[in-house]
Amino acid sequence: METNVTNIIIEKVKKSRISEVDFSNLPFGKVHSDHMLVCDYRDGAWQTPRITPYQGITLDPSAKIFHYGQSVFEGMKAYKDENGKVWLFRPDENQKRLNISSKRISIPELPREIFMDGLKTLVQIEKDWVPTTPGSSLYIRPFVFASGTGLHASPADQYKFFIVCAPSGPYFAGKVRVLIEEKYSRAANGGVGYAKAGGNYAGQFYPTQLAIQKGYQQVIWTDDNTHEYIEEAGAMNIFVRINDTLLTSPVSDRILDGVTRKSVIDIARAEGITVEIRKVRVEELVSASKNGSLKEMFGAGTAAVISPISGFGYRGSDYDLPEMKDSYASLLKKKITDIQYNKADDPFGWRFEVI
Amino acid sequence: METNVTNIIIEKVKKSRISEVDFSNLPFGKVHSDHMLVCDYRDGAWQTPRITPYQGITLDPSAKIFHYGQSVFEGMKAYKDENGKVWLFRPDENQKRLNISSKRISIPELPREIFMDGLKTLVQIEKDWVPTTPGSSLYIRPFVFASGTGLHASPADQYKFFIVCAPSGPYFAGKVRVLIEEKYSRAANGGVGYAKAGGNYAGQFYPTQLAIQKGYQQVIWTDDNTHEYIEEAGAMNIFVRINDTLLTSPVSDRILDGVTRKSVIDIARAEGITVEIRKVRVEELVSASKNGSLKEMFGAGTAAVISPISGFGYRGSDYDLPEMKDSYASLLKKKITDIQYNKADDPFGWRFEVI
Repeated sequence: METNVTNIIIEKVKKSRISEVDFSNLPFGKVHSDHMLVCDYRDGAWQTPRITPYQGITLDPSAKIFHYGQSVFEGMKAYKDENGKVWLFRPDENQKRLNISSKRISIPELPREIFMDGLKTLVQIEKDWVPTTPGSSLYIRPFVFASGTGLHASPADQYKFFIVCAPSGPYFAGKVRVLIEEKYSRAANGGVGYAKAGGNYAGQFYPTQLAIQKGYQQVIWTDDNTHEYIEEAGAMNIFVRINDTLLTSPVSDRILDGVTRKSVIDIARAEGITVEIRKVRVEELVSASKNGSLKEMFGAGTAAVISPISGFGYRGSDYDLPEMKDSYASLLKKKITDIQYNKADDPFGWRFEVI
Repeated sequence: METNVTNIIIEKVKKSRISEVDFSNLPFGKVHSDHMLVCDYRDGAWQTPRITPYQGITLDPSAKIFHYGQSVFEGMKAYKDENGKVWLFRPDENQKRLNISSKRISIPELPREIFMDGLKTLVQIEKDWVPTTPGSSLYIRPFVFASGTGLHASPADQYKFFIVCAPSGPYFAGKVRVLIEEKYSRAANGGVGYAKAGGNYAGQFYPTQLAIQKGYQQVIWTDDNTHEYIEEAGAMNIFVRINDTLLTSPVSDRILDGVTRKSVIDIARAEGITVEIRKVRVEELVSASKNGSLKEMFGAGTAAVISPISGFGYRGSDYDLPEMKDSYASLLKKKITDIQYNKADDPFGWRFEVI
């Protein structure tokens, strides 16, 4: 990261709320830290970013975010090591992807230095908010939305970029049972599935609720045309272990290019695990489950890191996965979090020191 | 519509802004009227609606609308006739469709009486804002979005329903040239294309901008799998006239069930026009254009009513449509707007008197 080249206007809180927070019992994403970063786009340019006390946002009722869904976001974490140093994990990847998402949603791309300097400065200010209990972190949410007004269905002329922070415990607890979805879809060919855009998430909630009513916790999305290939696991990328080979679907215009996904691939290969990036048929999972070669399935994403799957439902049948000693899921989660929390060497150069 | 069974709390403006507005030169959807309706969903129920002065909305930065795209809307118009009476057009259809959209986006459905009584009461209060210049109307925008907070990717626990009004001139002026899109898509099979959800619109802006850069004004969406069939025209339904037959694509989970679309179908049939509701191949358009049987194409939607198309681009070639005397587009637009503005009988029972 460059040195701080952005002039950020900083207004600190008069009194921190940090003493009111129970750090031993943090939910995910519900407690906000003292400050936030905000940057406005108007008159064709991103303006000077500001760090201010966390506060409400006032918008006109005709702001386009309320009508036409122009919003993109990122998910990141800050980790505190045993010496109190604070680290980010591959922040460049989030910075680049935010702009990839923005472009697809017709949101003006944000200059790299506003994202990077804003992020670094905000996390430095909020360093005491980074929790230290195992598995916890400061969840960081950069997001951009259309604040410009007008009921005409066209891109807005004003936008707002924010970064907010939430000290958080682990995202999921325990293994999840998943339902392979054959009716509803997450993304179209030529659509916005690869973008971290708000609309992609809203469309997932209803099918997920239906799966929950059937006794599952999450949905495995398949392609919208044939429903023969698995694509994502809820809001995470999907990995499958057959015998000792790790499989994951290739990214496409329907599949998010996950930072955790690509880190898992690199770590697995460094550990000597064979990784195949290819389309995976549902039928392959079913027959591998039947002949005992299906060993593991898990989701990978920033919030949950690795979310192990205990079994899947498909066409009215349930397929249980075995309990694995020395699972890839635990190995890979330990390897990736050890890098994140500065408990291990970082041969990939992924760790980024904040303060 | 029932009599007003909803207790609506009404707070009127101290001084109307109406004298500041140039009603002879209204843009589309940029001028707001004095009041708006707002209704909150919390504690598992929709609360008492309020009509208040039009004002800003203040939300927490973690409100789910900013992150997960939970938003749906409707588009409607109020029309003033020569005697000063104010009318709506098939408001029941918008009321039903809002809930169809909401269900798909995991937004709690709004009780019918809140929508209908709220709409009627608000338009009654804003009756002086309904413009009278030809082609103009009071554009009405009901919308719902997630105001509940939290960074977890799950449905919100609080929502807001609004109705805002904008005295507006015509949406489009003149014929448009369209590009038949073969790379980008609007909707997935099993997706949210049939819902009037914000995310559907955000995803259309970028491909539309690319088409504009190529010299077109609008995109014709095709199916995301084969791109062989036309589905929608920008944010409107699509109609094609081949010889004297009017064709339109069937609604599906990818295509919006447009109120103007179904009204056009009924009026056309009442006029003795043969209407075929079936999938229409791009190749059929191309060969019909070549042999002279392609007479007209137009979009149909609430905002523009009928938006005639002057020609289409496909795979690098441009196909011009003929200038038609006695076009279906003008006939159908006149018939539908004559009903809307109470200039003709209403054999279908579509007109609804507000005041």
